[in-house]
Amino acid sequence: MSVTFAKGFLASGVACGLKASGNKDLALVQNLGPVQLAAAVFTTNRCQANPIIWSKEAIRDRQVAAIVLNSGGANCYTGAQGFQTTHATAEAVGQGLEVSAGDVLVCSTGLIGEQLDLAKLTNGVSLAIQSLSNDGGIAASEAIMTTDSVAKRSEREASSGWRVGGMAKGAGMLAPGLATMLVVITTDAIVGPELLDAALREATAETFDRLDSDGCMSTNDQVTLMTSGASGVEPDESEFKKLVKEVCDELALKLLDDAEGASHNIHIRVAGASSLADAVEVGRSVARNNLFKAAIYGNDPNWGRILAAVGTTNAEFDPYNIDVSINGVLISAKGEPAADRSLVDLTPRQVDIDINLNSGGHHARIVTNDLTHEYVEENSAYSS
Amino acid sequence: MSVTFAKGFLASGVACGLKASGNKDLALVQNLGPVQLAAAVFTTNRCQANPIIWSKEAIRDRQVAAIVLNSGGANCYTGAQGFQTTHATAEAVGQGLEVSAGDVLVCSTGLIGEQLDLAKLTNGVSLAIQSLSNDGGIAASEAIMTTDSVAKRSEREASSGWRVGGMAKGAGMLAPGLATMLVVITTDAIVGPELLDAALREATAETFDRLDSDGCMSTNDQVTLMTSGASGVEPDESEFKKLVKEVCDELALKLLDDAEGASHNIHIRVAGASSLADAVEVGRSVARNNLFKAAIYGNDPNWGRILAAVGTTNAEFDPYNIDVSINGVLISAKGEPAADRSLVDLTPRQVDIDINLNSGGHHARIVTNDLTHEYVEENSAYSS
Repeated sequence: MSVTFAKGFLASGVACGLKASGNKDLALVQNLGPVQLAAAVFTTNRCQANPIIWSKEAIRDRQVAAIVLNSGGANCYTGAQGFQTTHATAEAVGQGLEVSAGDVLVCSTGLIGEQLDLAKLTNGVSLAIQSLSNDGGIAASEAIMTTDSVAKRSEREASSGWRVGGMAKGAGMLAPGLATMLVVITTDAIVGPELLDAALREATAETFDRLDSDGCMSTNDQVTLMTSGASGVEPDESEFKKLVKEVCDELALKLLDDAEGASHNIHIRVAGASSLADAVEVGRSVARNNLFKAAIYGNDPNWGRILAAVGTTNAEFDPYNIDVSINGVLISAKGEPAADRSLVDLTPRQVDIDINLNSGGHHARIVTNDLTHEYVEENSAYSS
Repeated sequence: MSVTFAKGFLASGVACGLKASGNKDLALVQNLGPVQLAAAVFTTNRCQANPIIWSKEAIRDRQVAAIVLNSGGANCYTGAQGFQTTHATAEAVGQGLEVSAGDVLVCSTGLIGEQLDLAKLTNGVSLAIQSLSNDGGIAASEAIMTTDSVAKRSEREASSGWRVGGMAKGAGMLAPGLATMLVVITTDAIVGPELLDAALREATAETFDRLDSDGCMSTNDQVTLMTSGASGVEPDESEFKKLVKEVCDELALKLLDDAEGASHNIHIRVAGASSLADAVEVGRSVARNNLFKAAIYGNDPNWGRILAAVGTTNAEFDPYNIDVSINGVLISAKGEPAADRSLVDLTPRQVDIDINLNSGGHHARIVTNDLTHEYVEENSAYSS
């Protein structure tokens, strides 16, 4: 039940008319406590949406009583009026739940440069407050969808009884795309603010941040982790980090699986790197190469495009000592052709690219999708 | 007549069976002198094709008697055998023309990881030598085509009588694409090696290097400028640089116009930058943004995607003091919506994006194409 799987949380998802389709477009998650701590990571894009500007301030004291999320508009580049809309949304939630507006985070997703309808939003907040329930996590996960074809949820329970669950939204190419990624994760474990923050940052660094990431984050990306402490259980630190990361990883792979118009999920695994940074740089260079991604769409094991992408990086490697495997077939070894291309079967959705730089002991995985006709179609027609 | 417009050059283009289609696939350009100086710029990709490795060595002494170019195979990642093929090609040209193989540059374009057929190549060299003529520039420009739909040529003549002309090949996305760009420019002006080199580097920096460039050059890119001195005229230095740049610019725009599957030519002009580097970085970030490029394909003036791309750069700017115009319509001013989207007409092939960072006096132009169905089709089916 996503964000209501952990104890101490209520949630709801309602339709308030922001989406022309009439579908659910506003989600609310309330933390009943006894503690109301949160951590969040925000987009590094320097052009930041109004809800990002607001939420960064609101979370400074780490106290968060609720988070409200709308689809149907990004509220980015909407000037002073747009910021007032975000502020008024937080105020409406605060008044309705009898908490400080400064303890309410706001997230928005949709088109940049359009004002949100404040009357619809505040009416939506009222509806959402009335609809709050301890099984509202499913409705909330549906209300944050934009071009997503399915809602994304994940849950884990520790043997000692505490729980962690979450929901995510995002169906674009994630990067180089600018499709907004919104994620809310809740837990009822008793953890302090430092562990909460560390667990979130470590988890996102190896999951959401490695979804085809080239630094091109959206103006609105936000991943928030909230704890209620309602389980009464103080978890083992490493187990806490592990389960938070598992939820992030499951949600990230669900985002990948639902990427706009994709026909392949591509896992690029770089090994033999002299540093983690090298491994990530090489993986990203391949993940954002349009010609490589178009080749995979055409079921063409075009390893030359992989090596050409690797060659644009500053990573440590000898161009004549790189090995490349596609779906388990060693297709290029030490800078020369190895197995015949015809041995590689690219018809399954899952594609594994293994690149060995033979320069050290570090490795990383970057995940991405292929570049398809459907991607072009969805992103050329996209305007909501 | 492209490379034979300047005096002192012979050229030819022949079919030797490297292309399955039977089309011309080998070009030869000979410099008859009296001088045989050349300058060249090469791909910065660290994975370099065998002809690049060869040509870099051959041009060290700046003496170049001939350049031979083949389509039908990149001769990259083909190991020791591939390098021997390049070497043997230069030797064949050297023997046939009675010049040193070390004064022969070699260029190749086509698929990575496949061996070229040396017997066909050496037979092609013989044919090309027999076909050399002082109006062979057109045939040569046709022989270097791969997925190009038209041959690209350019000529300029100074009032003092010296000439410069050239040919180019390249119809991919150029970058982020890895489609190889091969360019040969010839002149009969009497210029020393320093001016020749400076003129070429200054011209390419503002033309070919700003074609949607994100550093992702191909493994085989090479731009060569050769002079025969046959006009007997010593040009004014600034006029020489100007005409070389004009030829480069015309060829670059012809590459843009023929980019695989594109339906729009997009000129991104960044002004008000605090440095040239900032202007170029901002232009490139927009030029390589897939969501922006897909929006232009759909005739959607989605300025939010432009600002979001700008926001990922390290350039100096205030996010609330950027102006964006599309085809002359100021659509976003100071971080807020300005003119209505419906006023922008994106039906013409030419699209002008003007971004004013309002942070200084530097400016740059980056040119790119839209991301279309046809691009995906050509690059997923591409295997020749």
